[in-house]
Amino acid sequence: MAHTKVVILGGGFGGLNAAKALGNAKLDVWLIDQTNHHLFQPLLYQVASAALSPGDIAVPIREILSNYENITVIMGEVVKIDKDAKVVVLRNGDHIGFEYLIIATGARHSYFGRDEWEALAPGLKTLNDALKIRERILISFEKAERCDSISEAKKYLNFVIIGGGPTGVEMAGAIAEIAYETMLKNFRRIDVTKTKIYLIEGSPHILPVYPERLSEKAKHYLERMGVQVITGKRVTDITSEGAKVENTFIPAHNIIWAAGNQASAVLQTLDVPLDRQGRVIVESDLSIPDHPHIFVIGDAACAMDEKGKPLPGLAPVAVQQGRYVAMLLRKRMAKSERPPFRYFDKGSMATIGKTKAIGVFGKIQFSGFFAWLAWCFVHVLYLIGFRNRFTVLSQWLFSYFTSRRGARLIYRSPIESEMTKK
Amino acid sequence: MAHTKVVILGGGFGGLNAAKALGNAKLDVWLIDQTNHHLFQPLLYQVASAALSPGDIAVPIREILSNYENITVIMGEVVKIDKDAKVVVLRNGDHIGFEYLIIATGARHSYFGRDEWEALAPGLKTLNDALKIRERILISFEKAERCDSISEAKKYLNFVIIGGGPTGVEMAGAIAEIAYETMLKNFRRIDVTKTKIYLIEGSPHILPVYPERLSEKAKHYLERMGVQVITGKRVTDITSEGAKVENTFIPAHNIIWAAGNQASAVLQTLDVPLDRQGRVIVESDLSIPDHPHIFVIGDAACAMDEKGKPLPGLAPVAVQQGRYVAMLLRKRMAKSERPPFRYFDKGSMATIGKTKAIGVFGKIQFSGFFAWLAWCFVHVLYLIGFRNRFTVLSQWLFSYFTSRRGARLIYRSPIESEMTKK
Repeated sequence: MAHTKVVILGGGFGGLNAAKALGNAKLDVWLIDQTNHHLFQPLLYQVASAALSPGDIAVPIREILSNYENITVIMGEVVKIDKDAKVVVLRNGDHIGFEYLIIATGARHSYFGRDEWEALAPGLKTLNDALKIRERILISFEKAERCDSISEAKKYLNFVIIGGGPTGVEMAGAIAEIAYETMLKNFRRIDVTKTKIYLIEGSPHILPVYPERLSEKAKHYLERMGVQVITGKRVTDITSEGAKVENTFIPAHNIIWAAGNQASAVLQTLDVPLDRQGRVIVESDLSIPDHPHIFVIGDAACAMDEKGKPLPGLAPVAVQQGRYVAMLLRKRMAKSERPPFRYFDKGSMATIGKTKAIGVFGKIQFSGFFAWLAWCFVHVLYLIGFRNRFTVLSQWLFSYFTSRRGARLIYRSPIESEMTKK
Repeated sequence: MAHTKVVILGGGFGGLNAAKALGNAKLDVWLIDQTNHHLFQPLLYQVASAALSPGDIAVPIREILSNYENITVIMGEVVKIDKDAKVVVLRNGDHIGFEYLIIATGARHSYFGRDEWEALAPGLKTLNDALKIRERILISFEKAERCDSISEAKKYLNFVIIGGGPTGVEMAGAIAEIAYETMLKNFRRIDVTKTKIYLIEGSPHILPVYPERLSEKAKHYLERMGVQVITGKRVTDITSEGAKVENTFIPAHNIIWAAGNQASAVLQTLDVPLDRQGRVIVESDLSIPDHPHIFVIGDAACAMDEKGKPLPGLAPVAVQQGRYVAMLLRKRMAKSERPPFRYFDKGSMATIGKTKAIGVFGKIQFSGFFAWLAWCFVHVLYLIGFRNRFTVLSQWLFSYFTSRRGARLIYRSPIESEMTKK
């Protein structure tokens, strides 16, 4: 009965896939996560923009793993990893020992040392983040409708998105749809088409990891939707009244942060070398130096590709790393026998609004409506569970034809408490 | 352009139906609600029990009314009604004047003077309430799984529901399903079939407004599902450790309040006679004494039927009252011309678990599986919007065949903060 104990920290793409690949192995596997669900993060912006419900993109981890009797799921926050004592410590003081450890704790946003910006410009990593952003966007329109003058309403109808990566581009497109389509006939006192959406990117192009031609396409799509794309400029300040972009101040009550990432804080307790983003610099087998029984995968790891370039923080990287480590453990491979991890790049895609996307598959680049259809197909395919696939697909079909959004709800904070704060 | 101004307070069944019936009339209609959505309250317990998502049973009020150009929707909390100055005051200080006023502000739970019980035994009226209860139920199982001993885990696996009306019965049935079906293969350290569910009703029968034969049926259904039904006994104390039912103490960390109602507090600012539940005692045309231009409807009103008995707090009563008042206003009827409001009773139903219900239609009583099918049909029929009908129906079909629940999510509060509080 006493099998070797493997502890996995985190039930995201990396941790969950490691667990699944260890299902029914002769190992005693424990998965620990702060929440009770696996989140399909690529569609999180659709929760933030009221198109999908949390239940559509999140599934209880213990339900996904319920058929593997060797896996125990524990909900808890790990605050310390003691690599020499081979134990992790939870916030409530519980100690959980391990023989093998797979760290897949992911990343949070980074405000580049300006932590006071977090309350003013929330980022998008968890369901809670998404619902906070959704509520802020919806409350802005409600506040605008209550204003007595157009000039007063204006600041509630300005939206600033900081960071022109996939999340920033997707949010900008979604807000444009909300303002110019969904809300069109919903207000009497304000003109929602006066909404202004600014997307700010510090580098010369949005979606900078894509080929320049596709970045330009994406910019063109966004501009046609009504988004003002500002590239090559940095946000220098954020206040409760708006954002300063170099010398220009944009008054806005709705600022969304989609700029930087910082790996999870618990990695600092490991006492191993971290990169600038706080990620653990792992060896070619994803283990940490001198501790071949401890692995770090996904956004928590800085792993190199064949050319010595760090692998990107994408779901497929985490998935493949999770499966790779599980294979090493199933085969009980000693450090010296382990083949190096190799990432197989299946390509990447980003969507802009309801009908456009861009994509790269090896040397093939494509964009437009068919790229968007491919994007829909791939995302529904990778969702976990038949029910979620079915629900998401039907919500999309519904939105496509009606421009309505299925989860336009405000219920967490009363508008009045927000109003008095201005 | 300056039409007569009608202000409606509340977008529940009463207020929303009044507004719809005034759509495109030559009246300037304003609807004010604290939230941005109309909530289909009869299915709220399904959100609390993780079967449906908030978006499935709630629709933005301004979307429902978007085609009526004479209706302005304002999100805000009314704190004072000045019946002589003909003005309502919002929490932020805004004054909104009216010529006619329809008050449909509903009810909250009442703890019979024991307000300290609210934090320990939350009630179920809003989406926020439902999500709080959902999270508490799910976290209980998570906490139990973390316990080192069975005796420690036990208190997390005891559920107490206070109040044997429709909400209490529905919640008890839903929790039984969660414990004995949904969670069955999900835990490794605890045995979820050890879960105990207590339903406490002070009067001799649960569902006391139904004929005794049906109440007994409902009790039988619940007991077969594993619920312990305790009737004729009152809860005398609630602590963080459990509930005292006369001389018996039931240790439990999950107590749900489904016992009493209290009409909305803003009615007290009207300065008119209220009944014991804080409802306004209205005249036969639903107006208040000496103010024929102010009406109170739904759960905020105490209106009498032909026999002088107060009408029950049911959705159909509120709907019919809303339409009745709208008719009076459309016809500009003077007080003396107004026919008294008459409630047309179409019957009522309550559901017990996933496959059973009871119902009364005039002299016809029925129960069992076909009653449950009828219950499903009626509830889907009365939902607003094609999308919601479609989603709810497909979620029910999915749950019926798999026993899974579509929204088993914990994301609002970390388990650790709860754990330390015990």
